Amino acid sequence: MRRAIATVSLSGTLEEKLAAAAQVGFDGVEIFEADLLTSPLSPAQIRRRCADLGLTIDLYQPFRDFEGVTPERLAANLRRAAQKFDVMADLGADTMLVCSSVVPGTDGDDELAASQLRRLAELAATRGMRIAYEALAWGRHVDDYRHAWQIVAAADHPALGVCLDSFHILSRGDDPAGIRDIAGDKIFFLQLADAPRLGMDVLQWSRHYRCFPGQGDFDLAAFVGHVLAAGYDGPLSLEVFNDVFRQADAGRTATDALRSLIALEEAIAPDHHEKAAIEKAANLDGYAFVELGVDALGGELAERMLHGMGFARVARHRSKPVHLWQQGEARILLNRARSTGDEVAITAMGLESDDPAASARRAEALLAPPVPRRYGPGEADLTAVEAPDGTSIFFCRTDGAAADANWLGDFERLGEFERPGGEEAPAGEEAPGGEEAPGGEEGPGGEEAPAGEWGIARVDQVSLSQPLHYFDEAVLFYRSVVGLRRHDPEDIPDPRGLVHARAMTSAGSRVRMLLHVPALGGSRLPGTADFQHVAFACGDVFAAAVAMRAAGVPILAIPDNYYADLAARVDLDPERIEVMRSHGILYDRTDDGELFHFYTAMLGRRVFFELVQRVKDYDGYGTPNTPVRMAAQYRVSRGIPGGSTAGSDP
Amino acid sequence: MRRAIATVSLSGTLEEKLAAAAQVGFDGVEIFEADLLTSPLSPAQIRRRCADLGLTIDLYQPFRDFEGVTPERLAANLRRAAQKFDVMADLGADTMLVCSSVVPGTDGDDELAASQLRRLAELAATRGMRIAYEALAWGRHVDDYRHAWQIVAAADHPALGVCLDSFHILSRGDDPAGIRDIAGDKIFFLQLADAPRLGMDVLQWSRHYRCFPGQGDFDLAAFVGHVLAAGYDGPLSLEVFNDVFRQADAGRTATDALRSLIALEEAIAPDHHEKAAIEKAANLDGYAFVELGVDALGGELAERMLHGMGFARVARHRSKPVHLWQQGEARILLNRARSTGDEVAITAMGLESDDPAASARRAEALLAPPVPRRYGPGEADLTAVEAPDGTSIFFCRTDGAAADANWLGDFERLGEFERPGGEEAPAGEEAPGGEEAPGGEEGPGGEEAPAGEWGIARVDQVSLSQPLHYFDEAVLFYRSVVGLRRHDPEDIPDPRGLVHARAMTSAGSRVRMLLHVPALGGSRLPGTADFQHVAFACGDVFAAAVAMRAAGVPILAIPDNYYADLAARVDLDPERIEVMRSHGILYDRTDDGELFHFYTAMLGRRVFFELVQRVKDYDGYGTPNTPVRMAAQYRVSRGIPGGSTAGSDP
Repeated sequence: MRRAIATVSLSGTLEEKLAAAAQVGFDGVEIFEADLLTSPLSPAQIRRRCADLGLTIDLYQPFRDFEGVTPERLAANLRRAAQKFDVMADLGADTMLVCSSVVPGTDGDDELAASQLRRLAELAATRGMRIAYEALAWGRHVDDYRHAWQIVAAADHPALGVCLDSFHILSRGDDPAGIRDIAGDKIFFLQLADAPRLGMDVLQWSRHYRCFPGQGDFDLAAFVGHVLAAGYDGPLSLEVFNDVFRQADAGRTATDALRSLIALEEAIAPDHHEKAAIEKAANLDGYAFVELGVDALGGELAERMLHGMGFARVARHRSKPVHLWQQGEARILLNRARSTGDEVAITAMGLESDDPAASARRAEALLAPPVPRRYGPGEADLTAVEAPDGTSIFFCRTDGAAADANWLGDFERLGEFERPGGEEAPAGEEAPGGEEAPGGEEGPGGEEAPAGEWGIARVDQVSLSQPLHYFDEAVLFYRSVVGLRRHDPEDIPDPRGLVHARAMTSAGSRVRMLLHVPALGGSRLPGTADFQHVAFACGDVFAAAVAMRAAGVPILAIPDNYYADLAARVDLDPERIEVMRSHGILYDRTDDGELFHFYTAMLGRRVFFELVQRVKDYDGYGTPNTPVRMAAQYRVSRGIPGGSTAGSDP
Repeated sequence: MRRAIATVSLSGTLEEKLAAAAQVGFDGVEIFEADLLTSPLSPAQIRRRCADLGLTIDLYQPFRDFEGVTPERLAANLRRAAQKFDVMADLGADTMLVCSSVVPGTDGDDELAASQLRRLAELAATRGMRIAYEALAWGRHVDDYRHAWQIVAAADHPALGVCLDSFHILSRGDDPAGIRDIAGDKIFFLQLADAPRLGMDVLQWSRHYRCFPGQGDFDLAAFVGHVLAAGYDGPLSLEVFNDVFRQADAGRTATDALRSLIALEEAIAPDHHEKAAIEKAANLDGYAFVELGVDALGGELAERMLHGMGFARVARHRSKPVHLWQQGEARILLNRARSTGDEVAITAMGLESDDPAASARRAEALLAPPVPRRYGPGEADLTAVEAPDGTSIFFCRTDGAAADANWLGDFERLGEFERPGGEEAPAGEEAPGGEEAPGGEEGPGGEEAPAGEWGIARVDQVSLSQPLHYFDEAVLFYRSVVGLRRHDPEDIPDPRGLVHARAMTSAGSRVRMLLHVPALGGSRLPGTADFQHVAFACGDVFAAAVAMRAAGVPILAIPDNYYADLAARVDLDPERIEVMRSHGILYDRTDDGELFHFYTAMLGRRVFFELVQRVKDYDGYGTPNTPVRMAAQYRVSRGIPGGSTAGSDP
């Protein structure tokens, strides 16, 4: 299918928009009238520019409120149309979009509309052009695509057809299956936009919140399926009015846009193509590793904290200043060659893929930018792509099944004497305070881990701040390129502003991510705006808290008021709550299970760790407690009394 | 009336919120539960903190979904309430807010609700406390304040009353007059919030878009009038959930909040007070002057452009490096002592007030921060206040009627030989090209100015960029402190992002302002994000364009495509359009009249000028043409071909 984008979806001048669309590989554009009117290029120059770029001009939309008017107004409208046909002839565009009238004073009589549109089509036909009539969701008389089609059918002119716009149809909740009743050759154009379900005035919703397919809540695969079943064979064209895209870099938006179309085509492929054009997302079985880029100070701080948390330094990279710290299946790479300006930052994630090569091919097909790497002799040919926030994503396998992608082959194991974290690693030891740690029937995690063994088992989740205004792009990236499922969005209040968050989970929940971004830009951002964290799953957070306290790991203190409220809210044993209070352990409960979790203090300016213990089938991220965590972090960052770390001075 | 604010309306920690509320002069606070739970201060410590700050704790809102539940759930809820009464006792708060239940599984039977709320009230009474029951607009069974009052009346307990929230009532379009039917002593609390009409899901609307009274579209004066008429004598309390306020500086938000209450009290005063507490807004009769702060380069550039535009340097300040340039009644001060980091920036406006002293007293009463000034001997005691964007606002008179405030007395007039702009000023001269300039029946401005006299008459409008996220504050400032009327908001697309704009006009339209701000923050802002401009009214923009071109003033070029479309849209004489094209003159038309206008090139990085000619009763700001202007400015700023200035090389 040919792929097109409306110039209104991209920022900048018309020339910049065209260049961006061509650069990423779009086949055509819709030219929005305001972009032409504000351009010093003549229509003929625009035509040449597009031809040079390999772009067709698939649609021009110069005016509305054409039909249902008085004879005098019709004459004026036809005169104006004639002038716009001149412009289109110069542009080399042959299809004009005409939206259903919205102004007061127009007549809603269908016969009148049909006869006037027929007049326009006759005029268009003399120029070798055609008219695509579209029902706006807020059209005054015609707001339903079936109604627009009735009028077009009644007008019965070969140069008159309909334009279908997914937003105008799906925003109203109309059944798109009726599209199959439209003659395929009378569907002159197809405009695609997704949108989040916002329950707001449809005009404002359309003008500010449209987004690319897969970024909203509409079922565009089913929608396009109906259109293709009707026999449409024109371009899939994105027409997205979106405040963010208007402000974003045009090249970045164009990439995001094309990725959304490729993913959409994949979703509709089973019905309409012999085979999907791109590789399926491989199954992901967890985190192979999380890499922290560290500077000299950050490296020291990270080693000290990891050591206190029971990690051991087990291997070093053959050619780079990278060390592997491990506990259970949790692996942290400390990379001293990748400093970010922060003491510590999450710079890469290794995802365990059942088929790393297929994952890499899929990522490439979906326009994920490759991360250039230099290889030392004998190192694995790891493919990495760059996520929208700059994090490198490696698809790899830790077992030996795929030798190529076994990243551990790049590391040489350290002897015991080289492993400063090894000899003291508390994993497997009887944790101090073990008698008090839960292990009985009511104890969290009693089912999962034997009492006294609290060790970290694996990376449970990674939480990454996203660049301002690129949140939808990031969600689509992780959804399409990585193959994660997105959860419903949540708003979380930080003391200095609202934060949007979206959890993303792989099938089987072995890879969990949490993406977050401030709700508003500006010079005053939430303190947590660029925080990142790694949560580790462990069998007994109570024992872990005791052991980490003994090892001197600073823990984030949680206010007493939280525990007083917890006691009023839930039926936990008061003594249990008292232990939680003393260790800063938080609690969440759903119908599926329970979560006990606590946070370390900051490691540098951006990063912290979390220890989580999921009880039964708890599948969440503990977000009800996130405001409490953010407020505590805010206090610490500002040096406000009460912001000390738990257990540091009991 | 006592004035209170909910802690949720301010950013930061609880201590920071309390300090900000007390600092600006609030009498009390509502403590939002999340603020207490995340605070390390105990309830007793919070009570002491509030007492030290002179704040009462007027309301606590610890839970919801109390009523309409099973007996078991009721017992649990009462246990929890008892614990919350303990917290309230420690806080010294005696009123608990209970919102109508929203969860599924609750029973909508009114008798059940009344009996359960009575149980809660009985428990509260034993603690000397009381329950204020509020209908949420999205309550499951109770969403109307009249319904909540029926239940409260049926429960018939002295410790049970209603809480009225303006948002929950006005968002639904409910008639607030029914409030007069509620017994005054049963209205336990009054929460105030305004909101823009957004036509969206009421829950999201409430959580993100509430604003302070006067910033939205609700008639809060009438609303509060009903509540006072019912006999309510408790505090006016602002409960505003707003994404911006969550992120803004708490002190700034608190000032904005208190200003909104003072203005609200003024609006309801005629009915409920002997006299308004603050001075009425004085009539404004135009701009006395606009001051440009300039550095050395900016001063030179400004002088050259003003000279070319026909201004003359007529006076200099007695003690400061400030010169007055004048043409007609348009006065520009070039102030070399007020540099802003930009070559040229608008730093002050003098507004002609019928009573400058009264205007100053009003501004002070409305918390406008005074601008500290140093006076030289014999200088007028001008009072200035600082607008939210940092611009100084002077209330003054240019005539001699009020000697104190006659700011011109600070200036000494220059002799002819000292007036470089004087001898060549084209005002009054026959403009070159005068034959072609319109003057006949169809000519714009033919009614207003004799042919050949194109001189600038006065400042028509000033357009000021506003700081990100403080747009509502700015609109309220100019509305309340300065006394301007606000127009409907508009969204204007700049090539690099959407811009919100709001016109503000004085009674009689002698003072016009346009405030604008990027719709989104972030590192990539619209190029026009911090632009400012002064528009001058003149009798004949055609002649002005010719004269200014002859004088070498660079004019912003407008693309030919604009004029091709104009010819298709309106019935202007093609020759006229050709003249407009050659001079970059734009056109707008409403039912009231016409506007012809053009723009100069930039003067420094931020400022430009506009010349406008209003025909008949055109009362707008030419905003349909603003995207064209912004796109042209964007091209110039980026050095993109086609962005040259009109007439510079015909």
